Amino acid sequence: MASRFVSERNIKFLLYEVFDVESLTKYEYYSQHNRKMFDMVLKAALKLGKDLLFPIFEEMDRKPPELVNGEVKVHPAVKTIMQEFGDGGWISSRVPFDQDGEQLPSLVADICEFIFAAANYSAHAYPGLTFGASHLIESFGSKELYDTYVPRMRAGQWQGTMALTEPEAGSSLADITTMAEPTDSGYYRIKGQKIFISAGDHDGVENVVHLMLAKIEGAPAGVKGISLFVVPKKRIDDQGNLVSNDVAASGVYHKLGYRGCPIVQLSIGDKNDCRGWLVGEPHSGLKYMFQMMNEARIGVGMGAAAMATAAYYAALEYSKTRRQGRRVSQKDPNLPPVAIIEHADVKRMLLFQRAVIEGAQSLLMQCSKYVDFQKVLEGEAREKYDLLLEILTPVAKSYPSEMGIYAISQGLQCLGGSGYCDDYPLEQYYRDCRIHPIHEGTTGIQGMDLLGRKVIMKNGQAFLLYINEVHDTIATARDFKFLEKFANALNDSLTKLQEVTRHLISIAGHDGPEAFLADATLYLEFFGIITIAWQWLQQGIAVQKALNNGTGKKDLNFYEGKMFTLRYFFGYELPKTFGLAKRLIDDDRLTVEMQTDFFSD
Amino acid sequence: MASRFVSERNIKFLLYEVFDVESLTKYEYYSQHNRKMFDMVLKAALKLGKDLLFPIFEEMDRKPPELVNGEVKVHPAVKTIMQEFGDGGWISSRVPFDQDGEQLPSLVADICEFIFAAANYSAHAYPGLTFGASHLIESFGSKELYDTYVPRMRAGQWQGTMALTEPEAGSSLADITTMAEPTDSGYYRIKGQKIFISAGDHDGVENVVHLMLAKIEGAPAGVKGISLFVVPKKRIDDQGNLVSNDVAASGVYHKLGYRGCPIVQLSIGDKNDCRGWLVGEPHSGLKYMFQMMNEARIGVGMGAAAMATAAYYAALEYSKTRRQGRRVSQKDPNLPPVAIIEHADVKRMLLFQRAVIEGAQSLLMQCSKYVDFQKVLEGEAREKYDLLLEILTPVAKSYPSEMGIYAISQGLQCLGGSGYCDDYPLEQYYRDCRIHPIHEGTTGIQGMDLLGRKVIMKNGQAFLLYINEVHDTIATARDFKFLEKFANALNDSLTKLQEVTRHLISIAGHDGPEAFLADATLYLEFFGIITIAWQWLQQGIAVQKALNNGTGKKDLNFYEGKMFTLRYFFGYELPKTFGLAKRLIDDDRLTVEMQTDFFSD
Repeated sequence: MASRFVSERNIKFLLYEVFDVESLTKYEYYSQHNRKMFDMVLKAALKLGKDLLFPIFEEMDRKPPELVNGEVKVHPAVKTIMQEFGDGGWISSRVPFDQDGEQLPSLVADICEFIFAAANYSAHAYPGLTFGASHLIESFGSKELYDTYVPRMRAGQWQGTMALTEPEAGSSLADITTMAEPTDSGYYRIKGQKIFISAGDHDGVENVVHLMLAKIEGAPAGVKGISLFVVPKKRIDDQGNLVSNDVAASGVYHKLGYRGCPIVQLSIGDKNDCRGWLVGEPHSGLKYMFQMMNEARIGVGMGAAAMATAAYYAALEYSKTRRQGRRVSQKDPNLPPVAIIEHADVKRMLLFQRAVIEGAQSLLMQCSKYVDFQKVLEGEAREKYDLLLEILTPVAKSYPSEMGIYAISQGLQCLGGSGYCDDYPLEQYYRDCRIHPIHEGTTGIQGMDLLGRKVIMKNGQAFLLYINEVHDTIATARDFKFLEKFANALNDSLTKLQEVTRHLISIAGHDGPEAFLADATLYLEFFGIITIAWQWLQQGIAVQKALNNGTGKKDLNFYEGKMFTLRYFFGYELPKTFGLAKRLIDDDRLTVEMQTDFFSD
Repeated sequence: MASRFVSERNIKFLLYEVFDVESLTKYEYYSQHNRKMFDMVLKAALKLGKDLLFPIFEEMDRKPPELVNGEVKVHPAVKTIMQEFGDGGWISSRVPFDQDGEQLPSLVADICEFIFAAANYSAHAYPGLTFGASHLIESFGSKELYDTYVPRMRAGQWQGTMALTEPEAGSSLADITTMAEPTDSGYYRIKGQKIFISAGDHDGVENVVHLMLAKIEGAPAGVKGISLFVVPKKRIDDQGNLVSNDVAASGVYHKLGYRGCPIVQLSIGDKNDCRGWLVGEPHSGLKYMFQMMNEARIGVGMGAAAMATAAYYAALEYSKTRRQGRRVSQKDPNLPPVAIIEHADVKRMLLFQRAVIEGAQSLLMQCSKYVDFQKVLEGEAREKYDLLLEILTPVAKSYPSEMGIYAISQGLQCLGGSGYCDDYPLEQYYRDCRIHPIHEGTTGIQGMDLLGRKVIMKNGQAFLLYINEVHDTIATARDFKFLEKFANALNDSLTKLQEVTRHLISIAGHDGPEAFLADATLYLEFFGIITIAWQWLQQGIAVQKALNNGTGKKDLNFYEGKMFTLRYFFGYELPKTFGLAKRLIDDDRLTVEMQTDFFSD
């Protein structure tokens, strides 16, 4: 077991030096907070992660959930976790004061979630999903629904889920067949099948509340006929007792990783006795669900970055302590072996991991800050951040998910054969992280979302706002001599991004949507690398400021490490955009033209 | 379970159309063979893979080896496999007729190994390792050693291993501490510890024969003091009985994947009663072992390509049968869903996999053909192929290993959530394949081998021969109109490779070996991509010839698929060299300058 899973120093660097969370307290909504309180919250989150979640990280993997007599049995600690998260106010950390929440800035609440996910991703999913589901009811449900469900969910008594996927629909929500039949009693009768439902059933809580997509009888075809329902595992009868609501856990998946959290198959209404309550208006379910889905997507990115962070610290610890071989300049076999971190190639692997995880973490906090601006601003000022969040969501979901796999794989590689064995946690991180490019919309779907929707939305306004944000950073960076070279490199990349984007949009006009979107996944990768370079430049500015102010001297090693990692990103990662750009402007439409029969043999 | 794991059509394409194995039969050594016989061998290998190995692929993973009372218990099928491979002559397929072998060309013997590895990598390792170990005794051992061990190993009665790694030495063989004390009785007394020994002990055979590195007392320090010994688990006593030789299986690793084959920890000579027999001369062990290691490295590449091939066919089958969503040009939700292979992004993922696996397979067969030329040629002509094999070995080991992971990960992605669950084999391939960049020399070590040894060996002669080989292909390709564009692209890449190589060698002179080798892993990747582009161009030539001759018409779909995959490689993979070249000529030595303390927080 590694001895740590996050860097408190780095969290504070991002929170206070890069994103200046304290500046939010000048707004009325956050005016009751201050740095001292943020520090206390961080300290509590770190303690919870360290004492409660991290120690059972491996155990929850080794003893995965099982379906026993129709109920999913999970690790006994899940009960404690839900209670602690409920009692400690962690499920309601973002909730306004007037609803008895903590009203924390997203920057702070999200970094706490990052800490929990780094400590134990599976464990953190239970309260995380519960917050998302309760937030959906809070936003769009009736007062009655709110009163019945939300307080119990925030208290950690009831689990929340997102119940979207079905056997025959998968990513294509238009094809869901779960039906809702209206009754005269204010509820709908629900019937259908759901698959891949995270925390879809378990014995760590007294009830499970599904936020479920279904179609009301006679609804329009496709996504325009989807409604959102609250469908609890147990409903409250007239005497106030919890009774079965005919939602059966019919299976629990055996997964590659992420084993501490059950992914469940549900049979709904087999006995024709499942009741669901409509959330908001009929046929508007997808719109509502997208709120949760967008939060969940950024949450997946956060989890992926967090997991890769924990893996990095495990690899770092091993690399510092494991002695093997000599430096290539040392030929004498009588010299003692050096720690493997002395080898340039091991340093490269560690720098790669650090460049990815700290770059990704920075992007996620950028998104958190935009969420905070949404809360405190209004009108046009607010709309700017709505749009920036729209365009960054697919990137914030996918970059950490995809690159997290590579980072963890390089972490495993640092350990050599030991990385492949379960005496060390790397093999588990390698298994766990593979879920991220899949759940909450695959990378392919995120690519189409970015290029096919976000980049072109409102006449390209979101894209333009994004370009402006990056330009602002470039302009600021140019004031620092050491950053000039990197500012120029990012500027060139940004120009290239605009060129490539224009080229692709022109394809849409000439050759139609299929040609336009054929390489959307590569465009997402291209966009992602440039976005992370932007985040590194922002971090570089914060470092240079600290050094100029003299305040940085006290932890010079930390700042030196930051600058080397920035150099790594610009030296090794940003150049990957050259090849991607080359492909993205290539007019050979081979993936469109390729025919199924050509795969025949 | 997928229904197939290799493409017989593709194997025959490579064997007969690209590498023209029949042309080898004009040499005396292979003159007794012909196409009909090769076809029979292939057919038998495919049958063995399909009937014996593939059906237990999952089962061997689910019931991994266990250490019970000092012996490693493996799947009961291992006994049958070793017998079948022994009886069927598969362990001696490369062995000359005069030693009762099949004297098959490497091209044919290796493709059979590819088939077995694709069917079940863990299972294929047992006979594969046995061949390697027996070949080492055959090449460098005394007649007595040969007579005692080799026939029983080839018969599948005794398992062979490579016993190199030690707890404190790992990849740094200079630091091994297993000792060999000479006696007057013709044997040495061996004492030490070995770890990570594949098939290092099991109950599927009556004995295990370790080809073990150890140091004779008083030997020089470092690699110059390493000797090679035969150290059996059981030795033959004066009465001809097998008795314990004091080699104890002290542990079996719990691994991420590759679970069908035990990786064992050995305690040797705990009772001071372990006998080892010297192979060849004292202190020459590493040189001998390198024969086996080089074969094993190419074998790892072969296994990685094979595993990724099996994963590709599983992903292809799913993509053809799973229906979900509509084409992006189809807006009507009432249209039936299409097979996911209709989506351009799924085609892209499949083409990526195919580009990697068929490109890698082609490179491995290129190596096999060079091995065949070594057998049939002499003098300078032979030396050419020695050198080409030297320079290609690290590439043939690493490209399939590294890219196999990405290919399999994309295969898993094609299945979405199902890919993450063990109802489908992708998650197992994803676990199994992660061993390849580690065993038989990590990718980092391969990079240093390529740049630090092979490229500069004999004044760059191996490198020059390689460049000439690729140029020959480019010149031939230019005769085909359709290939001209690709020939030119490869030519440009080759020029870039020479430029980058010259630049790096100049660094060696100015800044010393550390700066020279700091990015050796990236150089290996760069070299690898260009090498695979070369292999695709060779395949393109074979396709164009077949089409021109009209003989290709009968399986036009296959040839069309090949050409699309070639286009994919040149369109999507070769451009990655732009970014790599940019980095490789960048003079920021950040990974050399980075200090351990900067990783401090």
